[in-house]
Amino acid sequence: MNYAPLPVPQLKEVKERLHSLLVTGNQEIDQVMTYLLQADGKMLRPRLVYAVASLQENQEGVVVDIAAALEMIHMASLVHDDVIDQANTRRGRPSLNSCYSNQVSVLAGDYLFASAFQLINFHHLPEVMEDVTGTIRTMCSGEIMQMASLYNVDISEADYYQRIFAKTACLFACCCRSAARAADLSPQILQMLNQYGLCLGFAYQIIDDVLDFVADPKLLGKPAASDLISGNFTLPVLLAMQNEREGPRMLELLRDSTSIADNMAELMDILVKTRALRDSIATSRFFVQSALTALEEIPPGEGRNSLLDLSHYLLDGYYANLIQLDKDRIDETGTAN
Amino acid sequence: MNYAPLPVPQLKEVKERLHSLLVTGNQEIDQVMTYLLQADGKMLRPRLVYAVASLQENQEGVVVDIAAALEMIHMASLVHDDVIDQANTRRGRPSLNSCYSNQVSVLAGDYLFASAFQLINFHHLPEVMEDVTGTIRTMCSGEIMQMASLYNVDISEADYYQRIFAKTACLFACCCRSAARAADLSPQILQMLNQYGLCLGFAYQIIDDVLDFVADPKLLGKPAASDLISGNFTLPVLLAMQNEREGPRMLELLRDSTSIADNMAELMDILVKTRALRDSIATSRFFVQSALTALEEIPPGEGRNSLLDLSHYLLDGYYANLIQLDKDRIDETGTAN
Repeated sequence: MNYAPLPVPQLKEVKERLHSLLVTGNQEIDQVMTYLLQADGKMLRPRLVYAVASLQENQEGVVVDIAAALEMIHMASLVHDDVIDQANTRRGRPSLNSCYSNQVSVLAGDYLFASAFQLINFHHLPEVMEDVTGTIRTMCSGEIMQMASLYNVDISEADYYQRIFAKTACLFACCCRSAARAADLSPQILQMLNQYGLCLGFAYQIIDDVLDFVADPKLLGKPAASDLISGNFTLPVLLAMQNEREGPRMLELLRDSTSIADNMAELMDILVKTRALRDSIATSRFFVQSALTALEEIPPGEGRNSLLDLSHYLLDGYYANLIQLDKDRIDETGTAN
Repeated sequence: MNYAPLPVPQLKEVKERLHSLLVTGNQEIDQVMTYLLQADGKMLRPRLVYAVASLQENQEGVVVDIAAALEMIHMASLVHDDVIDQANTRRGRPSLNSCYSNQVSVLAGDYLFASAFQLINFHHLPEVMEDVTGTIRTMCSGEIMQMASLYNVDISEADYYQRIFAKTACLFACCCRSAARAADLSPQILQMLNQYGLCLGFAYQIIDDVLDFVADPKLLGKPAASDLISGNFTLPVLLAMQNEREGPRMLELLRDSTSIADNMAELMDILVKTRALRDSIATSRFFVQSALTALEEIPPGEGRNSLLDLSHYLLDGYYANLIQLDKDRIDETGTAN
């Protein structure tokens, strides 16, 4: 299957707009922005914006700018996240902080945030601005909360969902709402699109968290199990801890936070034996299904088809990769549970 | 003299508004925001906003929010600057990054930026939003440029003014313009207030750069001559380098960037001998005079008096401190020049 829900000319349009807004003739900042724009991102947030906007005819220029603004906000948060996580790679090449410095990254992120707000403001969309600024506040406070709970073996599944809401789902949903507002869709439709974005965001982040354990580090652009090593206990880990037979041993290994990397083989073994990775994938699929259910409330047509296509595009490739890359590991059913 | 151009109740009002907007019931972020709000800042930007707004009667609630938003932007830029400069102290106590971490500081700054934009948007002031976002873009690109020119002995006075424009003067001017826009003042008055803010910003930053050499590190809240040691060559240094007799030796000492701290006694000696510190203070005073000249175009009255008072408040204390603290050092006229 080869999903391509957003026709290439539209993606190209967003990229060109980003370039014209961010590369403006100041040598130093242009260099940094050009480096960031050369990265081959998946452009998921612009794809979401365009798919939602396709439900209704739109004023020329608004959709591309909402898409560009939300991509800038995503870029800013990645650049700052890489400073926060001291990450060396991003999108398969050196991260901005490792290529330039933390200092440049902090400023580049601020520059991107300011540029995004300037662009939204240009179209006089105060409701979109309210939504986007509130979303960023949620993202930041969520991340500060996450930092406070690193290596905490007592975090619950509810904590995990709150965390991935702040990390991913709230911006996905905000993309849907912003595009719906710019396209002047009804509050009922906006509500369904919000639900769709949220569920897609949850599905996407859970798979991302599974991939951290099983995908090829080269493909992932970061070392394997980096979440676990850095104390970010994701859904597979929480599920394994709940396992009657293996949970106590998992807990024991995680309590000794300095030896997590050394005990990785055993930890991976438990994740497989307890089917925690498989169950996490099933949970992700459940969220995709919920996203599709939300779409049922939206009148059928080309626009709705774009949204359906997009959910497949976002996740089917991921699921396929998982099966392709790590068939053996995940397919081991083990005897536990 | 004891200038108090902004009556205390108004400052209190801004502080309370900041508290209610930033401390919202999320334990981790509340802790961080409370720490930042406890710092005893000079609240110069709110003072500027109130002084300008006093030229005209205003809608209730707008002025306090513009003042609060601009203070948040200033707070955000300080928090990020302390990460960038790896500063340990700020406002006489541990900086946020040293007290918490760089990670928390990056997020706290983003949270403050988003909160500021949300607040400006709340009042539906798209021109203010355009102005403020553009100003932040200028501040960020200016700082990235500055980083690229650290330890560069070839930077000109024009480069220096461009740098302090981005660092300080553009936000001072933006405060004046934003308050003028919120108060619906005429474009002619706005232009004069812009000029006033710019000149005040230049005057203020130059004095700040002089103080880095001469003030008591305890009073300053950071080590003496930290700018010079970190390769940020400010006006006194540029003036000393231009001195016919001592300039070549200054240049020689600065070219060896690793030994600047070791050669500080001789460098200070040159700054005094060439009267570079005194001449910098004179330049600062010249900018204050220009700021006052801009005010002459504004109809006399209570509002204009607030602006006059404010310029004295901002700088006279500084000048007095300079004379008080370092009379001997700056008063040595030397024989050079």
